[in-house]
Amino acid sequence: MSKYNPPYFGSDYYPEDWNDEELVKDAQKMRDCGMNVARIAEFAWSKMEPREGQFEFAWLHRVVDTLAEYGIATIMGTPTATPPVWLGRKYPDIFLEQESGRRRAHGGRRHCCSNNPHYREYCARIVEKMAQEFADDENVIGWQIDNEIYAGSTWWLGQSAVVGCFCPVCQEAFRRRLKEKFGTPEAMNKAWNLGVFSQEYSDFDEVPAPRDAWVNPHHRLEWNTFQQESHIAFVHMQADILHKYVHVPVGTDVMPVHGLNYVDLHRKLDVVMFNHYNEPSNLWTLPFWFDMLRPLKKDVPFWNTETATCWNGSNSIDQSVKPEGFCYVNSLMPLALGGEANLYWLWRTHWGGHELMHGAVLDACGRPMHIYDEVCRTGRAMRKAAEFLNATRVRTQIALHFPTRIWNMFSAEPVLPPKQFGYLDTLRPYFYKPLLAELQRCDIIESGNDLDDYKLLITPMCLTLEENGMAERIRKWVEAGGIWIVGPLSDVRDLDGARYKDRPLGVLEEMTGVIWKYAVPDRDREIKCQWADGTPIETGPWLELYAPDSRSLASVASAPHSALVGQSILLRRRVGKGLVYVLGAFMDMEAMRRLYRIAMADAKIPQEEGDGLSFLAVERVGEKGLRGKILLEYAGKGGEYMLDIAAKDILSGKEYMPGRIKVEPYQMLVLKAR
Amino acid sequence: MSKYNPPYFGSDYYPEDWNDEELVKDAQKMRDCGMNVARIAEFAWSKMEPREGQFEFAWLHRVVDTLAEYGIATIMGTPTATPPVWLGRKYPDIFLEQESGRRRAHGGRRHCCSNNPHYREYCARIVEKMAQEFADDENVIGWQIDNEIYAGSTWWLGQSAVVGCFCPVCQEAFRRRLKEKFGTPEAMNKAWNLGVFSQEYSDFDEVPAPRDAWVNPHHRLEWNTFQQESHIAFVHMQADILHKYVHVPVGTDVMPVHGLNYVDLHRKLDVVMFNHYNEPSNLWTLPFWFDMLRPLKKDVPFWNTETATCWNGSNSIDQSVKPEGFCYVNSLMPLALGGEANLYWLWRTHWGGHELMHGAVLDACGRPMHIYDEVCRTGRAMRKAAEFLNATRVRTQIALHFPTRIWNMFSAEPVLPPKQFGYLDTLRPYFYKPLLAELQRCDIIESGNDLDDYKLLITPMCLTLEENGMAERIRKWVEAGGIWIVGPLSDVRDLDGARYKDRPLGVLEEMTGVIWKYAVPDRDREIKCQWADGTPIETGPWLELYAPDSRSLASVASAPHSALVGQSILLRRRVGKGLVYVLGAFMDMEAMRRLYRIAMADAKIPQEEGDGLSFLAVERVGEKGLRGKILLEYAGKGGEYMLDIAAKDILSGKEYMPGRIKVEPYQMLVLKAR
Amino acid sequence: MSKYNPPYFGSDYYPEDWNDEELVKDAQKMRDCGMNVARIAEFAWSKMEPREGQFEFAWLHRVVDTLAEYGIATIMGTPTATPPVWLGRKYPDIFLEQESGRRRAHGGRRHCCSNNPHYREYCARIVEKMAQEFADDENVIGWQIDNEIYAGSTWWLGQSAVVGCFCPVCQEAFRRRLKEKFGTPEAMNKAWNLGVFSQEYSDFDEVPAPRDAWVNPHHRLEWNTFQQESHIAFVHMQADILHKYVHVPVGTDVMPVHGLNYVDLHRKLDVVMFNHYNEPSNLWTLPFWFDMLRPLKKDVPFWNTETATCWNGSNSIDQSVKPEGFCYVNSLMPLALGGEANLYWLWRTHWGGHELMHGAVLDACGRPMHIYDEVCRTGRAMRKAAEFLNATRVRTQIALHFPTRIWNMFSAEPVLPPKQFGYLDTLRPYFYKPLLAELQRCDIIESGNDLDDYKLLITPMCLTLEENGMAERIRKWVEAGGIWIVGPLSDVRDLDGARYKDRPLGVLEEMTGVIWKYAVPDRDREIKCQWADGTPIETGPWLELYAPDSRSLASVASAPHSALVGQSILLRRRVGKGLVYVLGAFMDMEAMRRLYRIAMADAKIPQEEGDGLSFLAVERVGEKGLRGKILLEYAGKGGEYMLDIAAKDILSGKEYMPGRIKVEPYQMLVLKAR
Repeated sequence: MSKYNPPYFGSDYYPEDWNDEELVKDAQKMRDCGMNVARIAEFAWSKMEPREGQFEFAWLHRVVDTLAEYGIATIMGTPTATPPVWLGRKYPDIFLEQESGRRRAHGGRRHCCSNNPHYREYCARIVEKMAQEFADDENVIGWQIDNEIYAGSTWWLGQSAVVGCFCPVCQEAFRRRLKEKFGTPEAMNKAWNLGVFSQEYSDFDEVPAPRDAWVNPHHRLEWNTFQQESHIAFVHMQADILHKYVHVPVGTDVMPVHGLNYVDLHRKLDVVMFNHYNEPSNLWTLPFWFDMLRPLKKDVPFWNTETATCWNGSNSIDQSVKPEGFCYVNSLMPLALGGEANLYWLWRTHWGGHELMHGAVLDACGRPMHIYDEVCRTGRAMRKAAEFLNATRVRTQIALHFPTRIWNMFSAEPVLPPKQFGYLDTLRPYFYKPLLAELQRCDIIESGNDLDDYKLLITPMCLTLEENGMAERIRKWVEAGGIWIVGPLSDVRDLDGARYKDRPLGVLEEMTGVIWKYAVPDRDREIKCQWADGTPIETGPWLELYAPDSRSLASVASAPHSALVGQSILLRRRVGKGLVYVLGAFMDMEAMRRLYRIAMADAKIPQEEGDGLSFLAVERVGEKGLRGKILLEYAGKGGEYMLDIAAKDILSGKEYMPGRIKVEPYQMLVLKAR
Repeated sequence: MSKYNPPYFGSDYYPEDWNDEELVKDAQKMRDCGMNVARIAEFAWSKMEPREGQFEFAWLHRVVDTLAEYGIATIMGTPTATPPVWLGRKYPDIFLEQESGRRRAHGGRRHCCSNNPHYREYCARIVEKMAQEFADDENVIGWQIDNEIYAGSTWWLGQSAVVGCFCPVCQEAFRRRLKEKFGTPEAMNKAWNLGVFSQEYSDFDEVPAPRDAWVNPHHRLEWNTFQQESHIAFVHMQADILHKYVHVPVGTDVMPVHGLNYVDLHRKLDVVMFNHYNEPSNLWTLPFWFDMLRPLKKDVPFWNTETATCWNGSNSIDQSVKPEGFCYVNSLMPLALGGEANLYWLWRTHWGGHELMHGAVLDACGRPMHIYDEVCRTGRAMRKAAEFLNATRVRTQIALHFPTRIWNMFSAEPVLPPKQFGYLDTLRPYFYKPLLAELQRCDIIESGNDLDDYKLLITPMCLTLEENGMAERIRKWVEAGGIWIVGPLSDVRDLDGARYKDRPLGVLEEMTGVIWKYAVPDRDREIKCQWADGTPIETGPWLELYAPDSRSLASVASAPHSALVGQSILLRRRVGKGLVYVLGAFMDMEAMRRLYRIAMADAKIPQEEGDGLSFLAVERVGEKGLRGKILLEYAGKGGEYMLDIAAKDILSGKEYMPGRIKVEPYQMLVLKAR
Repeated sequence: MSKYNPPYFGSDYYPEDWNDEELVKDAQKMRDCGMNVARIAEFAWSKMEPREGQFEFAWLHRVVDTLAEYGIATIMGTPTATPPVWLGRKYPDIFLEQESGRRRAHGGRRHCCSNNPHYREYCARIVEKMAQEFADDENVIGWQIDNEIYAGSTWWLGQSAVVGCFCPVCQEAFRRRLKEKFGTPEAMNKAWNLGVFSQEYSDFDEVPAPRDAWVNPHHRLEWNTFQQESHIAFVHMQADILHKYVHVPVGTDVMPVHGLNYVDLHRKLDVVMFNHYNEPSNLWTLPFWFDMLRPLKKDVPFWNTETATCWNGSNSIDQSVKPEGFCYVNSLMPLALGGEANLYWLWRTHWGGHELMHGAVLDACGRPMHIYDEVCRTGRAMRKAAEFLNATRVRTQIALHFPTRIWNMFSAEPVLPPKQFGYLDTLRPYFYKPLLAELQRCDIIESGNDLDDYKLLITPMCLTLEENGMAERIRKWVEAGGIWIVGPLSDVRDLDGARYKDRPLGVLEEMTGVIWKYAVPDRDREIKCQWADGTPIETGPWLELYAPDSRSLASVASAPHSALVGQSILLRRRVGKGLVYVLGAFMDMEAMRRLYRIAMADAKIPQEEGDGLSFLAVERVGEKGLRGKILLEYAGKGGEYMLDIAAKDILSGKEYMPGRIKVEPYQMLVLKAR
């Protein structure tokens, strides 16, 4: 139906950098290197509404039309991250108030308050005008709302930080929220244990913004969540407007950080958009995000809207030249894992401003960067694989919990020092990487996801099981036959981040019959554990110990304190038709792989064989028996894979028989089963 | 007379966390593990005065009574660290003004201005109400004023930091103080050398709070002292009120930091209370504090009001599981060194709020933590040793100067970079640890302490000798026969932190006849020294060199600069009947031990033999010839001790004869002489 | 003519510290150790004008006269860095506004706004009064304006920092400046590419100070330059006043940092004054600054107004005792390299205030510090060499570009992370140190310097060639026969720090015919290069690659990406009668020395032989064939030099014949040719 078909391959483009002559040249060159889409306009509010109420779209139509002439579709961005100077001059209250009490100033981006009525009013208007203007343009194939919206400021440290805007509008909205949630101050006092430190409130008006104090962690958790939800509401306001006019997918490009609940965010969105910037040293972490994006919209392939061709950078570059092939697999990985688009940021290096050191396809003067041929090769591979990719979907039977609520709880209450024990930075190596090593694909899910499609569920570090009725829904799923690995640090808090007063765990003792004994920090890693057969296990900085019994799979072999020795760290319990593995420790890679293999056997999930820390193996299935596997080498060292089907690699044309095959560094094989 | 007898063993307890049913259970369990005291109420203002002027004490009586039913006495805390929200709402000026100009906000604790009249008025009233309410309750055996009151913010870095509150009330009070101290601005200008940088004031009203500037160090010193004294005055205000009503000891729990003058603080207090949180790596530093607490109230054993059973932590834990026996000796050490109480913070982990990761005796749901049995064992040991402990006192003949004024002077004028040369972090390893190694006990004293009880006095890094007439009092004590080790960095400043204009040292040259030559920093440790017999001495980052003569004990052997070679770093001088050792260097452990042995021989102090870096040996004496020694292993590695008496270990019942005996890791022996 | 002749040897002196009796003693002692000059009065405003409009100079005359009695001339400082308290009390707006919005407070120094009219008015008046008072005093041989004036705050990190004062006066002046520079907001929008991020302004009044935002780098560059020029204007205002009255040289003491354009600063000044504090580890960096100072006033020897005798320090010392001889060569180096004065900071340690730990000649009580004899020896050497020094000048034929504009551009746009890639910290080891190693002397110049005196010009990291018509002036100089080494990172930006839209380089491609291919960061140093003969070259964190041809001297041998292999990093091009070396890489020491030797051969500059990383060899020439060489050992390890003349060392009296000679650690030889 559309003029344009996936996979989408393209880049961000800033017509505001260039004149019309350069625009034509750029469009030609995009086509020449195999592209079919460009993202534009995300920061161009001052071009569209140079003065209040004076709208100018002719230039933007010219851009869309010129791109289309060369076969390039447009993803249109709303420019709300960067209001024009006249708006801030008229309403200085649009700027967010920093923790210091100072308002942010004009310049930069994402510096406004999502709750501010003036800001929202003018955002709504520019979005509506754009929607009206381009609703019927067949060359616009998607809409992106705002850009990289995020409420946090120091997520990269995993630190417990107060986030967002402290302006009076936000404070007022926060107090209204508390009132709606708790009804009375007494209820809040009780939920947050505010009797301690005489923090009790008698009126919601007394509750300050969380600053200038040793902030109560429950207060902080609520505030951070409030700020995040304000951002989601801001996106939804735009989505509602766009949906009145446009008929193509609407999304917003998110980042590889938590802090907005992506499930909630996407309730009113049609497509998941994602930006990321990885290096060779951390490319293994990227599949994690695609495994998280894929289940957000089960039937709609996501769009990778930003990645670098060669390096990212603002006014300075903190990356090094990357090995040949990195760009290729980095660009193809989203398609292998369930996406249908890969766009670069950006087509042509900015010639001025904040980000002129960022890598691109062309340099500022229009010459190809060194990565140009690799980009073209990527485009060709995408075309070759297009039919197979479009006709198949990723298949997985495993799910791993990674809820936003938990991210926020670790921010407010980190358990161990956050720089050494960030939620993501702990969960990923301890629980996701062993799955990678086993060449298994999982869905990474929120607390509310349906579990019916999965045979094996992994729930580590999930401080509370109270959100979205998790505990009960998991219980039913286990009783019906599910295999559940739970812990450590799961089920130990209520929804507000408080401990249970009458039991150490919310439901696990009652559900499985295990008996909690002790929890201990082990920063210095002095506690040594072992499997029942005596195989040693190295454990991480936190242990939860259970009363041992005959169904204990692993336990403490030695410890600085005798009370700990012999206690169990892993227990197996039958619940209904299913099984629960109660895990109390952060175990080493080998031990976790062993546990996963045991549980996969329980769950009847076929095991894979190969160098899973070098490449991904992705099962793809389509209609009418169409199936195959994509292998994608991401470590630059190559490896071997035990192929279980006869297949042909669509990219190389090479035929494969079942058996051990080689995967070259940075190679992608699209193996269509015969 | 009292229902309750020392030693006191117990913990902090927060009835505000629990309902009455849990209270009863907790009281029972406290009794079960050998406890006889609980600290309560320190932050519970909002429970006692939920609305202005409406006082509710019934609940608190119920707590005290319930505890008493199970044999648990109460130490009652005044809740002034945490005013209720209504007070800050009515008088926002109670909150301290930060250096940034922003007021602190409700939440957390210790966030109010000690000089604010509204805060003081309401504090006085709640304290008086409590005093009236509980004055006659025989189960209340002591009162704790506020909690961990302290004026500083960055003491842990040893940094020169401006501290305290910058509000108008404080600024006004500071200017009044300057006027009282100096009389005229001219006098201040002269004392602080304000002619330099054109800083001179013509009116005290011109003096700003020390911020937003490269602050004059004398100004900073005065301000910091002022803030500290404001805190002391705030405590004294409460003490005066309590003393009108109550007849049991009143104290305030201080921390292992300086910055409040503990001698001044305790002038109006009856008992010294102390909180600390050590780990195995720094347990050797803990005796330092007990040696400092003991002389504060010569005849009153101090109370260790807080330590952890297993780890401390707020919302995260930055400690690791500790070896078995650590809790035992950590809990008993205060009793060995002159205390009569050890309480844990806390009995039962908070279930919500700021500090739910802190270790306790029971976890939040009431189950024993892994340390439970060790706690019980500690209680039993305390009971066994009670009679001997109560009947004897620690004996020492050595004193080490560690005045608050000097702490403050190093904060304002650090001499060498403060992160590498903190006062405490330099004094303790260089001057206290060699005493530990020699198994000697010293009193750690302020500038004003009486010296008559001591035979050997050590005064290193004591920048000024002007406070409390130190110089003249020491001179007389030496002339009467005292042995004094003084320097380096002693007697080099006047009381305001200025150098002498006409001499390098205040009194030492004149008193002893030594001749000061040079002072040099030696960050890179290139200067090598030696004893007169040629034994090499490693020296630290600062040296003061004296003209050598026949009474030089040690001197520079080699140096980057020829002017330094041959100069003396240690001179011995007879003064009256006594001796002065003028020390110019931070010497290595072996050299300091040698110097101490020489000086102890002069002072006729018997020497000890044993592994002093593994255990303490504490001489205890009582009436009617009662005497003995306590040995307490604190390093977890054990050692040998040359016992000079025949004695019986009260704890094990084992008899010992004079001679070499073994001390096991984390063992305490209470050796009562026969 | 003057009573006083160079070389000037002396120190800073603070009569405000001492009474008249001490003053006499100090003057005597200065004379005794060979001094003939003292700097005074720089911070003594409150002594000269204790109350508004009441001027007191009698004391200052007494100081000048007393010094003169002992043969000590005076350099007189204006005290504008430290206004008296009454001025700030009357006009609180004199204090600069910090980025936080808070004004600086009284105390410290350099805390006022250079643009504030009240501050400028009172500064002008005190300067005029001083000038009138001392204009005819023959003992005042020079004037120093203010002290260490500088607009930056974090230069020591090489960080991109917004600098200066944010007060309304500054903001208003900045907006006026923008209007003068750009005429219309549209022109500014275009130059700074403000269409990106909707930053466009429609009125200069809308432009905020660069804070509270992700600041646009062009905006930041302009602001920083504005602040610096405000400081220069402030100095010039004082210079104009002084020049109305005084007839001796006027200067201002600058620091070894950029950020003020020293060429512009000195347009109205008569002598260059310089303060520095080096340690053994970085003494090799000091000649860089003297090579930069020397060409600022071609015919006027500069004055080294501050260095330490032994260590610097404020209230703490972060240096260690230095080796004997360090003070000697550190003090003589400025004279060897074109100066005629060396003064210490300070004569006698302050007895109170901010800086009482700083090393001096005497300690606070007037006793000699350990460095005293070395200071005297330095004075004697200066006297001996005086005639030769006064009669000769340093000769060099090489220039190295180091423009202030580029410093500012790297601050605003650092290319690579600034902590690893500071402009100075990269340029100096990669481009200056190899010249040191080759025993060559160069002038370090601004963009506008005349080139006629040079045969070889080195222009690395010179982001723009647009300032002062550099590109065209260099082209003409090359065409006339100059040898030019240019790059890397040169000619890649316009004057506002933007890239060229139509070409990668401003002029170099057009001028030389080279073809730019790619630029790549190589943080991990994986790219390996080689000379055409196969000799390997290690390269730094950034490479610019050119299309190779027969005139390529060096190229990429191996790289992570095949597109880079074989590309050239060094091309040689004939342009007119001259040669251009287009350099694309930061090469290792050996490779740079090889390139310099090739280029020196082209330029017919004689090569030197000797341990250039141990000592300097400075060619000195005078009138009537007077010539010679100064050798100065700065590394403390000694070395050998191939002397090419017969000469006598004026200091030792020793005669030398051409041939290999030894240079001892910290030795200076003043070799006068026979």
